[in-house]
Amino acid sequence: MELHPALAVLAPLVGRWRGEGRGEYPTIEPFTYGEEATFAHVGKPFLAYTQRTWSLDTGAPLHAEAGYWRAGGDGRIEVTLSHPFGAVEVLVGTMAGGRLHLASQAVVTTPTAKRIDAIERDIDFDGDVLRYRIRMAAVGEPMTHHLAAELSRSS
Amino acid sequence: MELHPALAVLAPLVGRWRGEGRGEYPTIEPFTYGEEATFAHVGKPFLAYTQRTWSLDTGAPLHAEAGYWRAGGDGRIEVTLSHPFGAVEVLVGTMAGGRLHLASQAVVTTPTAKRIDAIERDIDFDGDVLRYRIRMAAVGEPMTHHLAAELSRSS
Repeated sequence: MELHPALAVLAPLVGRWRGEGRGEYPTIEPFTYGEEATFAHVGKPFLAYTQRTWSLDTGAPLHAEAGYWRAGGDGRIEVTLSHPFGAVEVLVGTMAGGRLHLASQAVVTTPTAKRIDAIERDIDFDGDVLRYRIRMAAVGEPMTHHLAAELSRSS
Repeated sequence: MELHPALAVLAPLVGRWRGEGRGEYPTIEPFTYGEEATFAHVGKPFLAYTQRTWSLDTGAPLHAEAGYWRAGGDGRIEVTLSHPFGAVEVLVGTMAGGRLHLASQAVVTTPTAKRIDAIERDIDFDGDVLRYRIRMAAVGEPMTHHLAAELSRSS
C-alpha cells in the first residue's frame, strides 16, 4: 500500500525498530533498557505507533506507549500519545535537517499518576538508524533530560 | 500469565472482540461499521487496548484508537486514549452492576483537529457479549449520542 502523500515528511519513520536506551532523571536511579518500536500505515494520513521497552537484565516489561503521528502537508507534524502509567500527550513540531523536533502542546495525567508538565522529543535520522532524546518537566523538576536511545530498522 | 490483582474489575474486558456498530451525530450522516478491539495484558496493572473499524460496504479502514486501561484497586478506573484524527482522552469511572461508566476528565485536540469538549462511554457486559455507547460534546454540539456497537469475544 502506498504511503499517503501528506506523510512524505514522516516516511523515514516507517518500519520496525529495535535497539537500546538509557534513562535518567534527578528523582530516579539511571537505568538501561531494550526497545522495540513500530510505525505502520493503512494508506491514511497518519502512522500508527506502538512501542515497548524491557529490562536488559531480566527481560521484564518496563514501559509502553501507543499513538498516532500525523502530517498536515505544510511540514507541521502532530502526535497523539497514550501511556500506561496514566498520561496522554499532544505534541507538535517540524522536521528540519534530518531532525524531527516535537514539543508538547499539552500533557494530561490521570488522578493517580505522577504529574508531568511538559515533554520535548528530538529524533535524528541517519538511514536505518534513529536516535531519540526525550526531556521532560515533571514532579516539580524543570525541563530535564530523561531518555536517550539508538534504534536500528529491522524491517 | 496471571492478570494483575488490581485488574480484577477489568477482567471481563480481556480478549479479542469483533462486531458491528452504528454512528450518528447532528453534523454527519448516520453510518454503520465493523469493529475489532483487543484488550491485552503483560502481568502489569493495566490493559493495552487497540481498536479499529471499517466500512461494512467497502472494507476500507474508518477509525482506530489505542491506549491503556488502569484500575487502582479501589474500584476507580482510569483510561488514556489516542486517536489518529488528532485527539487524546483521559477518562475516569467505575464498574457497577455489569456496567462500566467512564467520563472524560480531559479531551485535548491538535491544532488541525475538530474540537471535542467531552466524551462519555458506557460498556455493558453480558458474558462474551459487550455493548458500548459513546456520547460526546463536540464541534459546538451539547453532549449527544454518537456511537453504539455490540461485540462478541472471539478469543
